[in-house]
Amino acid sequence: MVFILKPNAKKEKIDSFITGWEQKGFSTILSVGTEHTAVCLIGNTAAVDMDHVVQTTDIVSFGKRITEQYKAVNREVHADNTIIRVGDTSIGEGFFTVISGPCSVESEEQILEIAESVKTSGARILRGGAFKPRSSPYAFQGKQAEGLEMLRAAKRKTGLPIVSEIMNQTQIDLFEDIDIVQIGTRNMQNFDLLKEVGKLKKPVLLKRGLANTIDELLMSAEYIVSSGNDQVILCERGIRTFETMTRNTLDISAVVLIKQKTHLPVIVDPSHASGIRSLVPPLAKAALAVGADGLMVETHNNPALALCDGAQSLDLEQFEHLMDELKVRAAIEKKEM
Amino acid sequence: MVFILKPNAKKEKIDSFITGWEQKGFSTILSVGTEHTAVCLIGNTAAVDMDHVVQTTDIVSFGKRITEQYKAVNREVHADNTIIRVGDTSIGEGFFTVISGPCSVESEEQILEIAESVKTSGARILRGGAFKPRSSPYAFQGKQAEGLEMLRAAKRKTGLPIVSEIMNQTQIDLFEDIDIVQIGTRNMQNFDLLKEVGKLKKPVLLKRGLANTIDELLMSAEYIVSSGNDQVILCERGIRTFETMTRNTLDISAVVLIKQKTHLPVIVDPSHASGIRSLVPPLAKAALAVGADGLMVETHNNPALALCDGAQSLDLEQFEHLMDELKVRAAIEKKEM
Amino acid sequence: MVFILKPNAKKEKIDSFITGWEQKGFSTILSVGTEHTAVCLIGNTAAVDMDHVVQTTDIVSFGKRITEQYKAVNREVHADNTIIRVGDTSIGEGFFTVISGPCSVESEEQILEIAESVKTSGARILRGGAFKPRSSPYAFQGKQAEGLEMLRAAKRKTGLPIVSEIMNQTQIDLFEDIDIVQIGTRNMQNFDLLKEVGKLKKPVLLKRGLANTIDELLMSAEYIVSSGNDQVILCERGIRTFETMTRNTLDISAVVLIKQKTHLPVIVDPSHASGIRSLVPPLAKAALAVGADGLMVETHNNPALALCDGAQSLDLEQFEHLMDELKVRAAIEKKEM
Amino acid sequence: MVFILKPNAKKEKIDSFITGWEQKGFSTILSVGTEHTAVCLIGNTAAVDMDHVVQTTDIVSFGKRITEQYKAVNREVHADNTIIRVGDTSIGEGFFTVISGPCSVESEEQILEIAESVKTSGARILRGGAFKPRSSPYAFQGKQAEGLEMLRAAKRKTGLPIVSEIMNQTQIDLFEDIDIVQIGTRNMQNFDLLKEVGKLKKPVLLKRGLANTIDELLMSAEYIVSSGNDQVILCERGIRTFETMTRNTLDISAVVLIKQKTHLPVIVDPSHASGIRSLVPPLAKAALAVGADGLMVETHNNPALALCDGAQSLDLEQFEHLMDELKVRAAIEKKEM
Repeated sequence: MVFILKPNAKKEKIDSFITGWEQKGFSTILSVGTEHTAVCLIGNTAAVDMDHVVQTTDIVSFGKRITEQYKAVNREVHADNTIIRVGDTSIGEGFFTVISGPCSVESEEQILEIAESVKTSGARILRGGAFKPRSSPYAFQGKQAEGLEMLRAAKRKTGLPIVSEIMNQTQIDLFEDIDIVQIGTRNMQNFDLLKEVGKLKKPVLLKRGLANTIDELLMSAEYIVSSGNDQVILCERGIRTFETMTRNTLDISAVVLIKQKTHLPVIVDPSHASGIRSLVPPLAKAALAVGADGLMVETHNNPALALCDGAQSLDLEQFEHLMDELKVRAAIEKKEM
Repeated sequence: MVFILKPNAKKEKIDSFITGWEQKGFSTILSVGTEHTAVCLIGNTAAVDMDHVVQTTDIVSFGKRITEQYKAVNREVHADNTIIRVGDTSIGEGFFTVISGPCSVESEEQILEIAESVKTSGARILRGGAFKPRSSPYAFQGKQAEGLEMLRAAKRKTGLPIVSEIMNQTQIDLFEDIDIVQIGTRNMQNFDLLKEVGKLKKPVLLKRGLANTIDELLMSAEYIVSSGNDQVILCERGIRTFETMTRNTLDISAVVLIKQKTHLPVIVDPSHASGIRSLVPPLAKAALAVGADGLMVETHNNPALALCDGAQSLDLEQFEHLMDELKVRAAIEKKEM
Repeated sequence: MVFILKPNAKKEKIDSFITGWEQKGFSTILSVGTEHTAVCLIGNTAAVDMDHVVQTTDIVSFGKRITEQYKAVNREVHADNTIIRVGDTSIGEGFFTVISGPCSVESEEQILEIAESVKTSGARILRGGAFKPRSSPYAFQGKQAEGLEMLRAAKRKTGLPIVSEIMNQTQIDLFEDIDIVQIGTRNMQNFDLLKEVGKLKKPVLLKRGLANTIDELLMSAEYIVSSGNDQVILCERGIRTFETMTRNTLDISAVVLIKQKTHLPVIVDPSHASGIRSLVPPLAKAALAVGADGLMVETHNNPALALCDGAQSLDLEQFEHLMDELKVRAAIEKKEM
Repeated sequence: MVFILKPNAKKEKIDSFITGWEQKGFSTILSVGTEHTAVCLIGNTAAVDMDHVVQTTDIVSFGKRITEQYKAVNREVHADNTIIRVGDTSIGEGFFTVISGPCSVESEEQILEIAESVKTSGARILRGGAFKPRSSPYAFQGKQAEGLEMLRAAKRKTGLPIVSEIMNQTQIDLFEDIDIVQIGTRNMQNFDLLKEVGKLKKPVLLKRGLANTIDELLMSAEYIVSSGNDQVILCERGIRTFETMTRNTLDISAVVLIKQKTHLPVIVDPSHASGIRSLVPPLAKAALAVGADGLMVETHNNPALALCDGAQSLDLEQFEHLMDELKVRAAIEKKEM
C-alpha cells in the first residue's frame, strides 16, 4: 500500500505517521521527491482500511492498494486452480460440471423422477430447494426439513451428490448429509453465516448478490476460506440493472474476471439470471464458451405445475437436449462433463 | 386479479381454468367480449404468483394485479398513519425525530460523550453499532455484546432510547433492553430474521436494501407485521447505481412514494446514503423537505479517529449546527422535533 | 390495446370514451363483466400513448398493449430473417460475420496493414473511426474527413467493405462511399439523425445506448426502417451498471431476446463491452454461442501506441488466433464465417 | 499526474519514459524510493489519457490524477460563482430561479395562458418544447419551428425570457431569439452540438444524461466553455436505475457535489426526474433545501389534454400553490426568487 502525501506535509507529521505504522508492525519506506512524498507500507495490509486512513490523516493526499484485500482466495497468492471433489465428481478447471434439479423439492416422487432423468442426461449433482427465500410472506416457502429428507432419499437411489440452500446458521445441523451447502444471493453478505459455513468440512456454493461487485463476492469467499474452509464454488447468477426484460442481467464478463482473480471454481446459473426458459440454453452455452467450470440449471418434470419458478425451468426433455448440445461443445473446449 | 385470455382459448380449457381457481377458494367472474375474454379473481390474491400463472397457462395472454401483494402495511387497507412511541418519543406523521450516534460503539466514554451532546442538540434516540457487518473479514467487526452493554449504560445516564443493529436471530436475547432493533441493509430480505423480529413487542427499524425496490421493502415490512409486530419504521439509505462519486444514491423520491403507499413512518439515513460528511446536512434538510418522519445521522466525538465510517460522521459541533438549521425548517413544515 | 375501466365508471363517460376512439379511426369492442368492464381497441395502436390515456382518463383503471409499438422491425409482423448484403458479404441468420479494424484510423499505412491482416484472418468488413466522440474536449478527436479517405484507400486495396461512425446529419455526404454507416451509442436516440440515415440506400449499424432498454433500441431501429431504410444491423455493446471492473456490462441475454423480437441481424462488440483485451476472446465466443450474427472487434497493429482505446484492442496475431478459434465453433453452430 | 513504476523497472526504460514526456512539453520529477519509483508530470495534463499510459507502458504500475480533467468549469481554477443574467433575471448563487411552462408548445392560446399564469405565480423564465425527442417515431414530435414562433409571441406579451430545446446544429438559426438554448438529456454527449452552442453568445441549459456520471456532465460543460461560451446552466433531472416506480431516480446528492466542483449554476427538473405529478412539489422543495439555484417545472393549463407528459405536469393552480410554499422556504435559505 502506498500513500502519497500532500505537498505541504510537515516533517513532524510525516514522522508521526510513519511511527504509527511501525508500531502496528509494518515496515515502511519513505520516498521523498521534489514535489511529492510517498510512504510505502510493507506487511499484510489486508486489514488496513485505506480509505479511512486517507480521510482521517490530513497529510495524506491519496492511497493506492498494490495488492487486493483478499489473500486466501487470491490467485496471486495461490496460483493453482482449486479442484473440488464431491463423491466421484470434480468441479474446477478441466471440468464442466452440471448441477440440475427443481427450484423447490415438492415430493419424493417429483425429486426422484427428476434426479433419475437429469442423471441419465449427464448432470453430476442434484439440486433442490427445501427452504425458499420469497419476497412475499404469502408465497410458498418450501418443504423445509422434510424437503431435505426427500433430497437425501433421491441421493440414496441415484447416487448423485446433493446441494441445497441454507437460510441461517441455526440450520447447520439439518445440512449434515447434504454434500454442498448453498449460500443464496440474499445471504452473500450475511457474514455470520459465512463464518459458520467456514467451519464446515464440505464444499460451499456461494452465489453472487444481486447488487454486489466482483470484489465483494471475492471478499465474501475470503470470509469462508479464512474461517477454515477452502472448498468454495462461486456462482454468477445475474445482477440487477435498469433492463427489466430479463429478471436479472447475466454478467458473463464476470466469469472471466473472477477466474483471473481467484483459483476457485466458478459456475453460472442461467435460470435465475434470465428467469425465462428460452434463454437458458443459449446462456448455458455462453457460460461454457467463456470458460465457466459448470452450470446450475433448474429442471422440472412438469414446469407448468411447479410451485416455484416454473417459467424458468426446463422440462426433462429440454434438459436432455441441452446436455447433448453442451457435450459437443465441451469437447471443443477440452472440458470433461 | 384479472387474466385476459388469448383470442383462441377453447371453452373446455377456460372451464378448467375457472374450476381450478374455484377449487382453491376464489370466486371468479367470466367476462366474454367479442375479441377478448377476461377472468377476474375475487378473494385474497396476495399469495397468487401471477407471472407464474401467465407463463404456465397457455390460454392466458396476460394478467394484472388490481391490488398490491402487501396488505397489512398498505395504506389502502389501513389509512391512518402509524405513530410509534419509544419512551416519551414519537416517530411518525407530525414529528421529525432525529436518531444520532456513532457508526460503532467504541468505549463507554465515547458513547457517553456523544449521547450527552446529541441529546443537548435535540436528538431523541441514540444509535450505536455493536455488531458491524463489514465486507472484509479483516476489518473491525464491532465491540459485539460489550458494545450493547456500553449503549445501555449511555441510556441509563441520558435517558435516551437506544437502537442497534441485529445480525441474526441467535442474537435476539442480547437485544432485550434495546428499545429499537435495527435490520440492516444486507438483511432486508433475510426472511427468517424478519419473522423473528416480527414476534417482538418493540419497534423494528428496517433499512432498504442496496438493490431493493420500494415494493420489496414493503413486502419485507409485511413479513414483520404479518408475524405480529406492527411497529415498523422504514429507512431509505441510498441505492446502488452507476454513479460512484457518492457511496450510494439517495433515492429521495422513494420517501414520498413509500409514505403514499404505507401508513408506516419513514426516515432517512443521509450518512450511509452519501458516505461524505459535507453532504449530510443538505441531504438531511432535503429529507425534511420531502416529508420524511425523521433522520438517522452518524456523529462522532472525534471523526478522525473513528474505527468505522469516520468520513461520513459529523462531529458534535457540526451536528449541533445542523439541528439548529433543522429546527427552523421543521417549524415551517409543522413538524415537532 | 385493452383498457380496463374502473368499477364505478358511468355509462355516459364510457360512451364518450368509445366515441372518441372511433372518431380517431379505431374499432372498439366493449366487454362488460359483472365487476370489470374492458374496452379493446382495434387498429394500428402504435401511435397511441397508452400511459397518457390511462393517466388522463379518469374512468380507466389500466391499459395493456397486446402488440409492441414497433411494427416494421417486429418479428410478429415480418417473420423472415433479414439478411443484409454488403459487397459479397452477408450479415444475418446462418452467417457469423466479423467486422474488425482499429478504434481510430491513424494513417494510411496503419489502416492498410490492419486491413490486410484481418482480411487474411477472415474478417469480412473493415471498421475504422474517423470522427471520434470523446468525453473530454482535450482528447484526440479522430482524423475526421481525412480518416474516411484513408479508409476508402484501404477498401480499394483489399476489397473489404468499410464501416465508420457518423456523428451528425451534416456529415451525410462525407459517407457517400462508406458501405455501412454506424450510429454510435451516444446517438442511439438522436432521432433526427435516425430519420436521415433512414433515407439512405445502404446498411446502418445501430449500437445500443449505454442506458437504453431493448425496447428503446427496437424503437430506434423503427425510426430508421419507417423512414424507408430496412437495412439495419443492431449491435449489443454493453450497458452501464454498478459494476466498475469492466467498462460496461455486456448484456449477453439481450442478443437472444432481440433476435426473438425482431428479424434484423444482431452483432456484438466485445471490445467496448469490456474495455479489457483479455476479455475480448471469451466474450466473442459467448456471442457466437448465444446466436449472434457477428462481431465487431477492435484490432490494432500496435495496441501500445494506439491513439484511442489501445487497452481493449487485440493485436493482429491475437485476432488471427481468435478467428481460428471462432471458425471451429462456427462450424458447430452451422454458421458461415 | 503521478505514475508509480513497477519495482523491477529498468533504468533505460525509465529514462525513455521521462524523455517521452519532456518531448511533449511536460516537466517531470523522478522520485526514487527503496521499493517504488514515481514519476510526476507537471504541466496541463487534461489531455493526457492516463489509463492508456498505464495500460500501454509496461514499466508503469498505476497512475493517479491529482487534478480533474476539466479546467474551465472547475471551481479550483475559477472559484467565484458564475451568475448568469437573462433579461432582468439572474441564475446562480443567491437566487432560486423557477423556469416553468408546458412540456410541449401546442398553440398560441395555450402557451400564452400558461405564460401569464406562471409569471403571476413567480416564474422568471418560460419553457416550452418545440422539437420533441420521442422514443417512438409514431408519437407527437412537437410543433417544430411554429412552436418556437408561438413561444416568441408569449415572450412579447409577457416579457418572460424563453428557453427551448435544440435537437441538432442545423437548427441554430431557428434559435436566434430564444434566450436560453437547452441541450436535452439524450444530447448531453452530442459533442458536435456542444461545440456549436459553445460559439453562441447566450446561456445554454445542459441537462445531465440518463446514465451519465457527474464527471461526464462536467466534461460536457467543459466542451461548451472551452469553445468560448461560459454561460452554462447545469440541470439534474434524474438517472436511470433499477427502481421503476419513478420514471428516473432524482440524484439529489449530485446537486451538492456539482456545486462543490464547479462555479456554474445548477438547477433541478423534478418533473422529468419523477414522471409523477404528486412528487413534483416535494422534490422541488428538496432541491431548494440542498442548495440548487433553481427549478424547471412542467405546467399545463389542462394536463389531462396535454399532448405530451401530462402525467407529470402541474396545473396552474397547483403551480401557484407550490410557488407560495417555495417563497416561504427560499426566504429561510436566503435566496431571492
